Amino acid sequence: MKRNVFFLSDHTGLTVEAIGMSLLSQFGDVEYNITHQSFVDNEEKILRAVAQINQAAEYDDSRPLVFSTLVNPELRHHLRECNALVLDYFESYTTSLEQELGLSATPMHGQVHSMVDANAYRDRIQAVNFALTNDDGAITRNYPAADLILLGVSRSGKTPTCLYMGLQYGVLAANYPLTEDDLRTPKPPKILHSYKDKLYGLTIDPFQLQRIRQERRSQGRYASLEQCQWEVDAAERLFKQHQIPYINTTAMSIEEIAAKMLANSGMKHR
Amino acid sequence: MKRNVFFLSDHTGLTVEAIGMSLLSQFGDVEYNITHQSFVDNEEKILRAVAQINQAAEYDDSRPLVFSTLVNPELRHHLRECNALVLDYFESYTTSLEQELGLSATPMHGQVHSMVDANAYRDRIQAVNFALTNDDGAITRNYPAADLILLGVSRSGKTPTCLYMGLQYGVLAANYPLTEDDLRTPKPPKILHSYKDKLYGLTIDPFQLQRIRQERRSQGRYASLEQCQWEVDAAERLFKQHQIPYINTTAMSIEEIAAKMLANSGMKHR
Repeated sequence: MKRNVFFLSDHTGLTVEAIGMSLLSQFGDVEYNITHQSFVDNEEKILRAVAQINQAAEYDDSRPLVFSTLVNPELRHHLRECNALVLDYFESYTTSLEQELGLSATPMHGQVHSMVDANAYRDRIQAVNFALTNDDGAITRNYPAADLILLGVSRSGKTPTCLYMGLQYGVLAANYPLTEDDLRTPKPPKILHSYKDKLYGLTIDPFQLQRIRQERRSQGRYASLEQCQWEVDAAERLFKQHQIPYINTTAMSIEEIAAKMLANSGMKHR
Repeated sequence: MKRNVFFLSDHTGLTVEAIGMSLLSQFGDVEYNITHQSFVDNEEKILRAVAQINQAAEYDDSRPLVFSTLVNPELRHHLRECNALVLDYFESYTTSLEQELGLSATPMHGQVHSMVDANAYRDRIQAVNFALTNDDGAITRNYPAADLILLGVSRSGKTPTCLYMGLQYGVLAANYPLTEDDLRTPKPPKILHSYKDKLYGLTIDPFQLQRIRQERRSQGRYASLEQCQWEVDAAERLFKQHQIPYINTTAMSIEEIAAKMLANSGMKHR
């Protein structure tokens, strides 16, 4: 039987899901039946959530696991009525922080993800638009404004990585696809010469590249293993010869690629 | 003086930043000097991080705050050498979970954000590509495959929302811009008639819409307040008359819009 898990949040639920899943992933063999309860931001909703949790407890052999990032103590209070293991993040840490800072906590839900820092948020949206506009080398005139220019062969993961760099970190990331012509030349494409410090390469296992290309266009040289191998070899040679830092994206998620690039490049979080 | 804060993670650092920031946001008046330490995944790196934390403690009047999502107990162990308030998420909760589940935790960092569920990850990337392909009403032939079709006037936030729906939730979201012609007709555009259940509207405060449009093209009718007011009124009238659910995006981040749509529509998390 699957173990019932509830993610309770008074906001988007992204944080509670991330922390809950990372804790649960330590117990590989257990299967979970997950319920997301987001925007639980008033008495009526918390009472409904508690009732649902207690109902699950009744129908199951083992009590549910409840992860909570409810900020408001008056709502959190009701979690004590749950027949469940409740891991309540704000309950656990707010007191230590109050003592350390010598201040009382003021519950304001969603401050962080919300519009508190409207400028930072606008930067992120502008960075998403920058990634969209400067995708795939179509436009190169905005490279002076770019924080980062990603290089890689077709389907190596440049576009989603650039979008994510903008969305999560507000980094202005353009990308440039290495074509066959580029790969036959021993130097980086001329248009990139002035931006050496902004370049970052992506590479990928040729077998995986082939699979990805085949999903798009099932046949032809473009998706042949031979072609994929040749392109990847040539791209990696280019990165190495010109000291362009690069990442192998084969076994990485976009979140991981982006965080690694940020950590390696010493760029600031915004 | 700003309070030193360290976010320690053996992986991307996204989770520890989210939980740390949400806790800190309860203390509005304090200013923080934040250091991100991600991919701290071996002895050498944790020792370097501890040294940096202790150095900060020496140069400051008050000891640093350290938030950690380090999974490996052998690395976590070194956090006890910190002259800091350490809020160690795995240390706090792993034991309760072990007792509750009757199992021993196996530290495996980054399971969640990593490639553990390669299919779910591939769905997310395909959903990002779907959002890119089916942006701005350019293509409508993929609407049968869409989970969601966002409707709204130009610059109401459709594109970044669709991208985020794909990236975070694996939801296939297309979007369709309501043009002046569409808004003069009392019915939704003909091409959308078969997809009534997939439609979701975005609306926005006309003053903010004007500001956003002016940033792009500074003059002309498109960015006039009168035009923005007329378009927003007509769009909202359309949503109401045809029972299309809609969200006012004015004071919301993309994360909030997406999570709200998901919660309201009853769509499943993937």
